[in-house]
Amino acid sequence: MDNMTPDTLPVTAVPPVPLTVEGASVLHQMVRLRRPAWRALEAATRAAIVAEAAAALGQWERFADGRQTAVYSLLGHKGDLLFAHFRRSFEELNRAELDLARLRLSDYLEPTTSYLSVVELGLYESTSKVYAGLTEKGIQPHSEEWDKAIEETLARQRTAMAPRLWPEIPPARYICFYPMDRRRGEQANWYRESMAERQRMMNEHGMIGRRYAGTVKQIITGSIGFDDWEWGVDLFAEDPLVFKRLIYEMRFDEVSAVYALFGTFYVGLRVPAAGLAGVLEA
Amino acid sequence: MDNMTPDTLPVTAVPPVPLTVEGASVLHQMVRLRRPAWRALEAATRAAIVAEAAAALGQWERFADGRQTAVYSLLGHKGDLLFAHFRRSFEELNRAELDLARLRLSDYLEPTTSYLSVVELGLYESTSKVYAGLTEKGIQPHSEEWDKAIEETLARQRTAMAPRLWPEIPPARYICFYPMDRRRGEQANWYRESMAERQRMMNEHGMIGRRYAGTVKQIITGSIGFDDWEWGVDLFAEDPLVFKRLIYEMRFDEVSAVYALFGTFYVGLRVPAAGLAGVLEA
Amino acid sequence: MDNMTPDTLPVTAVPPVPLTVEGASVLHQMVRLRRPAWRALEAATRAAIVAEAAAALGQWERFADGRQTAVYSLLGHKGDLLFAHFRRSFEELNRAELDLARLRLSDYLEPTTSYLSVVELGLYESTSKVYAGLTEKGIQPHSEEWDKAIEETLARQRTAMAPRLWPEIPPARYICFYPMDRRRGEQANWYRESMAERQRMMNEHGMIGRRYAGTVKQIITGSIGFDDWEWGVDLFAEDPLVFKRLIYEMRFDEVSAVYALFGTFYVGLRVPAAGLAGVLEA
Amino acid sequence: MDNMTPDTLPVTAVPPVPLTVEGASVLHQMVRLRRPAWRALEAATRAAIVAEAAAALGQWERFADGRQTAVYSLLGHKGDLLFAHFRRSFEELNRAELDLARLRLSDYLEPTTSYLSVVELGLYESTSKVYAGLTEKGIQPHSEEWDKAIEETLARQRTAMAPRLWPEIPPARYICFYPMDRRRGEQANWYRESMAERQRMMNEHGMIGRRYAGTVKQIITGSIGFDDWEWGVDLFAEDPLVFKRLIYEMRFDEVSAVYALFGTFYVGLRVPAAGLAGVLEA
Amino acid sequence: MDNMTPDTLPVTAVPPVPLTVEGASVLHQMVRLRRPAWRALEAATRAAIVAEAAAALGQWERFADGRQTAVYSLLGHKGDLLFAHFRRSFEELNRAELDLARLRLSDYLEPTTSYLSVVELGLYESTSKVYAGLTEKGIQPHSEEWDKAIEETLARQRTAMAPRLWPEIPPARYICFYPMDRRRGEQANWYRESMAERQRMMNEHGMIGRRYAGTVKQIITGSIGFDDWEWGVDLFAEDPLVFKRLIYEMRFDEVSAVYALFGTFYVGLRVPAAGLAGVLEA
Repeated sequence: MDNMTPDTLPVTAVPPVPLTVEGASVLHQMVRLRRPAWRALEAATRAAIVAEAAAALGQWERFADGRQTAVYSLLGHKGDLLFAHFRRSFEELNRAELDLARLRLSDYLEPTTSYLSVVELGLYESTSKVYAGLTEKGIQPHSEEWDKAIEETLARQRTAMAPRLWPEIPPARYICFYPMDRRRGEQANWYRESMAERQRMMNEHGMIGRRYAGTVKQIITGSIGFDDWEWGVDLFAEDPLVFKRLIYEMRFDEVSAVYALFGTFYVGLRVPAAGLAGVLEA
Repeated sequence: MDNMTPDTLPVTAVPPVPLTVEGASVLHQMVRLRRPAWRALEAATRAAIVAEAAAALGQWERFADGRQTAVYSLLGHKGDLLFAHFRRSFEELNRAELDLARLRLSDYLEPTTSYLSVVELGLYESTSKVYAGLTEKGIQPHSEEWDKAIEETLARQRTAMAPRLWPEIPPARYICFYPMDRRRGEQANWYRESMAERQRMMNEHGMIGRRYAGTVKQIITGSIGFDDWEWGVDLFAEDPLVFKRLIYEMRFDEVSAVYALFGTFYVGLRVPAAGLAGVLEA
Repeated sequence: MDNMTPDTLPVTAVPPVPLTVEGASVLHQMVRLRRPAWRALEAATRAAIVAEAAAALGQWERFADGRQTAVYSLLGHKGDLLFAHFRRSFEELNRAELDLARLRLSDYLEPTTSYLSVVELGLYESTSKVYAGLTEKGIQPHSEEWDKAIEETLARQRTAMAPRLWPEIPPARYICFYPMDRRRGEQANWYRESMAERQRMMNEHGMIGRRYAGTVKQIITGSIGFDDWEWGVDLFAEDPLVFKRLIYEMRFDEVSAVYALFGTFYVGLRVPAAGLAGVLEA
Repeated sequence: MDNMTPDTLPVTAVPPVPLTVEGASVLHQMVRLRRPAWRALEAATRAAIVAEAAAALGQWERFADGRQTAVYSLLGHKGDLLFAHFRRSFEELNRAELDLARLRLSDYLEPTTSYLSVVELGLYESTSKVYAGLTEKGIQPHSEEWDKAIEETLARQRTAMAPRLWPEIPPARYICFYPMDRRRGEQANWYRESMAERQRMMNEHGMIGRRYAGTVKQIITGSIGFDDWEWGVDLFAEDPLVFKRLIYEMRFDEVSAVYALFGTFYVGLRVPAAGLAGVLEA
Repeated sequence: MDNMTPDTLPVTAVPPVPLTVEGASVLHQMVRLRRPAWRALEAATRAAIVAEAAAALGQWERFADGRQTAVYSLLGHKGDLLFAHFRRSFEELNRAELDLARLRLSDYLEPTTSYLSVVELGLYESTSKVYAGLTEKGIQPHSEEWDKAIEETLARQRTAMAPRLWPEIPPARYICFYPMDRRRGEQANWYRESMAERQRMMNEHGMIGRRYAGTVKQIITGSIGFDDWEWGVDLFAEDPLVFKRLIYEMRFDEVSAVYALFGTFYVGLRVPAAGLAGVLEA
């Protein structure tokens, strides 16, 4: 790493990075219930603790101004509960985390893992168009004019895509969450592919997703600079088999087969506030 | 990752993904017995707890409507007990997990790991035939006609293969469970091989398995989108040496030698409800 | 993974897998002493617990019918004690594990890791000869006649090699245990080498071992299908420096340099039953 | 490894290592609050403990003589608090660590991870110039004259760059910390690239950073020989989205795309001494 | 793995393994202080425990007959204290470990990691000479005459190098410890390089070390067969910056750039017996 601030070598090439617009700040918290301690409590104490938690969750689960928290009962040992917090900023996420920590229920929860990201929409197509347009007009990358045009494009997209940037959590019965990277291997390196090649592969990838639009909803979040993988993917469906079918089919498309690296998979069932007592039944 | 929904580039190539049919939802739970706390209990308390657990297990271990839970005593430090739950859905698995957690015995168990998957039968041969037939008739992939034909094929296979999709857990003395992936290396990448090549290699692989049919039963489960590996394999045998012989022989076939990546191996002995007191003897 | 049972493609090639014969079932258990709790006991209580454990160990450490357990004091944080159990079957190993767990001493031990395997003798040379002989006679691989000849060969070898298949644990002062794999890299892949090449490399490897025969004893165990590496290696010597010298020299032979992958190394000093009180002195 | 001290083979090639100057010693400590135990305390006790900690932090957070400690509330499970200590030496860091450990608050904190490094400024440009100048004069690398010239260069740079070597921690609302390596792959190996190539790539990398100068401050620390990655990067910004934008854009430049390997990412919000009570509210 | 003992294929090639001589047996123990429990003790109890530990350490820290133990206060979360034990044998190391475990202080320490190795001097130059001499005389490798000559060479070296084989721990203020491997990659494989090539690279590597001789002392220990890396490196210096400078410079030499793989780095400050109370101050 170097701190030099060279005064030479003006970079005028068209940037290789696709534009993105961002929306909700998202924190996934996976926790385990310390069941022996929980069961050791008197039934009345447990009931009071559940009532407090259900009341708080009842407020958080309502979607308002892009803010919402959904709870899921996870399958397997990776955690008992998953809290998916969507907020307006990281500061609000921090507050959500602290609010949860202050519930009496939290004395019986221990964190297993978490994931921090923001809703992100990649704009490969718009990027290519706007870059091409600016280049045609002879506008230099990173010039004032260039930056202004880019900012205008982003502003337009943020407005047009607001409902997808600040989404309500789909009310589906099942969630599937996993983080992923684009490979930077010694031979296969996503970040060395041309914009056109990347756009082509993302197009092909998107075609598959479209065929599943009726049965699975997805929210893509970006986490470069925030967490240990580049993206987090949330899938929502009434039938969990579609998670397998969709991801298996995609595994054969070029961008996934060659460039996708996957982290840990979490699968859970939605638990509304009213159902919290059920999953916490001792 | 990109959220684009491109309107161009119709994909008309024959899909590279083999068809699969799915059956029972499966959860493997590996747990450790907190033996010092367990032994610190009065003998009468332990006996009551074991009786409660054995009664529950007695019900769960009976195979009915594709539902069944088998318990194994694991060898080594990876866990003391393995619960293999087979159910009709993930929702039922979630309930099985919670039911187990509510046994008093669970206060003395701690999860070490788990695995979530569904019984899966891959249909390389049928896939090739049905794709070829549709292509011959000039039917476009993903057209309404195409999808209808595929759905009919799957429905037929689900009926024909029902006994293997909703299997009774083989009553063998030993279990061997491990998860696995197909390699997506920079040079050797299963997902870039043609359907014909994959089918050829799977055929060769299957030939070996057939020779062991009399001494080992296997249940293959798919876990793409559900857990951290692509497949889970359960082998059942009276003599554990056949696990080694079978897997060693397969390691030399092309699909395993070049493309198989293996996770953690678990070996255990079947514990019927009536034998639970034995393995929990303090 | 595919469950197909193809009816075509008869495999008639000479199998690439070398024959092996197997003997004792082996479990290595590494445990840590919870010393603060142990030291908090009254001296008389400790003495009684040690006496119980020493009496049990006294029985287990005697070699009889291929059954024996040896205890080692491990160096470093990987564990305080190593129990090496040799038994007639996995069922007996399971019982050994439970018998150890029921000693009062076990309330003060916690498992750190373990390794499950069976004594294995690879038969590269015999395999080549018997395969060549059968091929010459025009006998088809996996035909009834072929299988019968193979079984006879294995039976002969099991008898001839019985003392090495059911070995007494060498009484040496030091043990070195480690698991290992043969590499299945994208370029260097042991399982894609011809039988002749593998035999040549194993021969060269064996030549080195022979020169150390006077100072180090080794027991090779196979663990494909049983644990997370393919083989476990136990070395026994009076002087631990020979472990380093032998393994360093072997690291330069082709089979190790190119194809060997090593797991965790454990080094310990033999603790006879009579010495148990010494290492457990608070 | 070899301890030989050969007397031959004089090395006269121009050294491939760029010069660096170093400043503050830096320790990042990530800790988790043991919240159940903390909440179990009486409110008055907690208040007294917070007061003690806030008083200490109040002193440490003031920048004086290159010494300063800043506290952050971390997002997610990787820790609840991050202490970033900047000191004059490792000995002072050791004292800072012990001083923190002696606060009563520390009884309720447990370390999750940490990172040890020193502020480092790489001098690719100066290095090339000074090496070229010395070579032109025919001065032999590592000769007395050479070493004297190098030391003078370093001394000049240390003076000129003192404010960046002994920085005040930027008062921004957000921190992003992550460690990183330069790849030493079998094909792509940073340490086998020529000085000129490395300088060219670092230049290009620096150009991107310069465009973000107004919105993000960075402090690069070197950790070769100190911790498990080669560098630690601290980014400071009012808007955390710029972390993502900067790092995503850089991921496409050659030095990052081909040679950068990234560790764990930590994101937190600055907590001034006066705000400590807030994040510790039970 | 194969247990064959082939009777053919005499190996007559000159061995590729360099000779080494070995000295002190070394165990590094990294431990964490359970500070909350430690601080909960009465001051007088703590003082008594520290006095006991300081008295023991006072004895162990004196260098006598190649035996010595030094204590360091570690920076960061990897441990609070590092005990570096140098002894005459592994048996003595085992005793040192048990002696430390029996101090009352150990009830408040928990092991985080450790490293087991022996002081090793590699003899690339001598090896080449002695092998060349024997080959010239027509002496067959591994013949009786050959082995006798090798043993004489080693004996001479052990005598000549005794002070470096049984070293006193340098009294420097700082220690840096890390384990390392020589790469056995699919393309770059140290163990497939010729002796001459390895000697050339080690020579170049040694030249760098020599220039740091005045400011840093190093002790190389070998751990093949003993622990999970091939070598352990201890560096000792008054100024920790020289650790970074030395290792960074070496990272560019061929043997490190291409073949070195590094484990975890530990940095600590020497704590003499008289200073133990200081670092344990509650």
